[in-house]
Amino acid sequence: MSKPFVVGIDIGGTNTVFGIVDARGVVIASSSIKTAKHNNITDYIDELHTELTKLITENNAVDKIHGIGIGAPNANYFTGTIVDGVNLPWPTPIPLAQLVSEKFGIPVAITNDANAAAIGEMTYGAARGIRDFIMITLGTGVGSGIVINGNLVYGHDGFAGELGHVIMKRNNGRLCGCGRTGCLEAYCSATGVARTAREFLEIRNEPSLLRNIPVDEITSKDVYDAATAGDKLAKDVFDYTGDILGQALADFTTFSAPEAFILFGGLAKSGDLLMKPLRNSMEKNMLPIWKGKVKILLSELKEADAAVLGASALGWEAKTAEMTIVPPASASAVN
Amino acid sequence: MSKPFVVGIDIGGTNTVFGIVDARGVVIASSSIKTAKHNNITDYIDELHTELTKLITENNAVDKIHGIGIGAPNANYFTGTIVDGVNLPWPTPIPLAQLVSEKFGIPVAITNDANAAAIGEMTYGAARGIRDFIMITLGTGVGSGIVINGNLVYGHDGFAGELGHVIMKRNNGRLCGCGRTGCLEAYCSATGVARTAREFLEIRNEPSLLRNIPVDEITSKDVYDAATAGDKLAKDVFDYTGDILGQALADFTTFSAPEAFILFGGLAKSGDLLMKPLRNSMEKNMLPIWKGKVKILLSELKEADAAVLGASALGWEAKTAEMTIVPPASASAVN
Repeated sequence: MSKPFVVGIDIGGTNTVFGIVDARGVVIASSSIKTAKHNNITDYIDELHTELTKLITENNAVDKIHGIGIGAPNANYFTGTIVDGVNLPWPTPIPLAQLVSEKFGIPVAITNDANAAAIGEMTYGAARGIRDFIMITLGTGVGSGIVINGNLVYGHDGFAGELGHVIMKRNNGRLCGCGRTGCLEAYCSATGVARTAREFLEIRNEPSLLRNIPVDEITSKDVYDAATAGDKLAKDVFDYTGDILGQALADFTTFSAPEAFILFGGLAKSGDLLMKPLRNSMEKNMLPIWKGKVKILLSELKEADAAVLGASALGWEAKTAEMTIVPPASASAVN
Repeated sequence: MSKPFVVGIDIGGTNTVFGIVDARGVVIASSSIKTAKHNNITDYIDELHTELTKLITENNAVDKIHGIGIGAPNANYFTGTIVDGVNLPWPTPIPLAQLVSEKFGIPVAITNDANAAAIGEMTYGAARGIRDFIMITLGTGVGSGIVINGNLVYGHDGFAGELGHVIMKRNNGRLCGCGRTGCLEAYCSATGVARTAREFLEIRNEPSLLRNIPVDEITSKDVYDAATAGDKLAKDVFDYTGDILGQALADFTTFSAPEAFILFGGLAKSGDLLMKPLRNSMEKNMLPIWKGKVKILLSELKEADAAVLGASALGWEAKTAEMTIVPPASASAVN
């Protein structure tokens, strides 16, 4: 009998959100635990098991879970491990797929959060029916999930799709969390927008609503609010951000000629403030053969459910534990 | 009975080279005609048919040709047409696959020259057994063919893999043949190397062997010869070229995490003059997770046979004319 549900788990630095999802992408039930509560990964997985089992039992889903999909930072699909887990409290590498699959007795597949979002969008969202697209997640960082001919691109080692770390400024670029300078992420993430605002406030003399906020506390939300209220400097920050992102999307098009880019995350909800300069810049910088031919779409996943839905979509692909955690020969060189 | 041979045709601006190839990649026989001799595409195909039929007959290959593969500038795999055929004497679009397949009664597949090179390398050359690699052709221009999980990337419209047109200089970049400025191709092609030499000669005062050559006549071969003879300025030209190409390869890695880049074309034969600065720059600019993990290999296809071999490998994929020339729905928007 084929099992009608999957479980999606989204592991963030603060919260771990999980839910039971049916084949049509309806989140039947969801809950969460604190990610950082346990210093020991075993304790964390014990609590996850307790809470998730409760949810499964309450919803009459025992023995009806096809697979578990997990989206987590720096999670590798091939090896089932988290490497260099930036904001997570446990030592890396973490053999997460193996640990969860052993605990639950259910097949587990893991990937990074942006890839999970791309799979979710392809399965349930704006990318249904689109076989070539690039998901760009504009959050604290800039992530990406690349789909070519209907397949997510993992690369030879499982780490493909790090487009937030393409260099956009080769001279005097901003320091990025990766240790290099000039990365797309340093400009077009939520933190990048706040950095741009701080830079503009420092080098310009004009008045701005943002000058009412202590400069170190300015967030991208503050910039959005000020721009919506008509603040010129704040609007210029969005123009600057859209311009750089448009240059990047034009370059990315030369790689896989996607039918569409799909934007996801807080900044993607900035409306015309971001979309207008973004579309203008992408078209201006596009190689002639693609001018006017590549769409920019917004995610259609409901914000509250998106992370769980994205991860859960991967649950349909989850194989037996053995297949999930044994790395292919070409990936073994990574760790 | 399965047919033991394929035909490869490489259409260049000057010559059209064609050959009969067996399943092991041996060029049984080859010949060529002048591409630009005929102003009319029908006359050109007539001569190609006459000469190729002669070659097939002489080599007892009548009724033994599985398919014909053609590599040509701006050739689209999905539609079977050449669009904006830069150096070709005929009006575009040219429905090349249809014309050739009707004339010969043999299935035809076409793609651009860099994609053909990638398929050739995967079938017969340095990429045998490598499922994720990027072919970079360093010739008059810079071309690319991207292979992900064993499949060539065509994109939603058949034009993917134009990495020569990724922007490497966003300010004061050189004018590129595509009409934009700062493209990789404007720096790291053979013509780019000659341009760099001319720039260095103009802005520097030091002596150089290259000053013995009329400045407008300097070629990349001249720069290579001078560098090999120990000329400092000429060596600096290769350092500059390798540095930019290394930055580009580091960026490309974030996309598809290839196991290897494979270099092809005249410049790729510059030895350590190019490879040393290239490897240094790629490693220096690489995102930490890929440092020391991505190979740079040289093409293993014999120079004389490479273009024909690459195109011929596509011949094994050629389907009946109908399948080759009818564009999929998503590609119809292109023309």
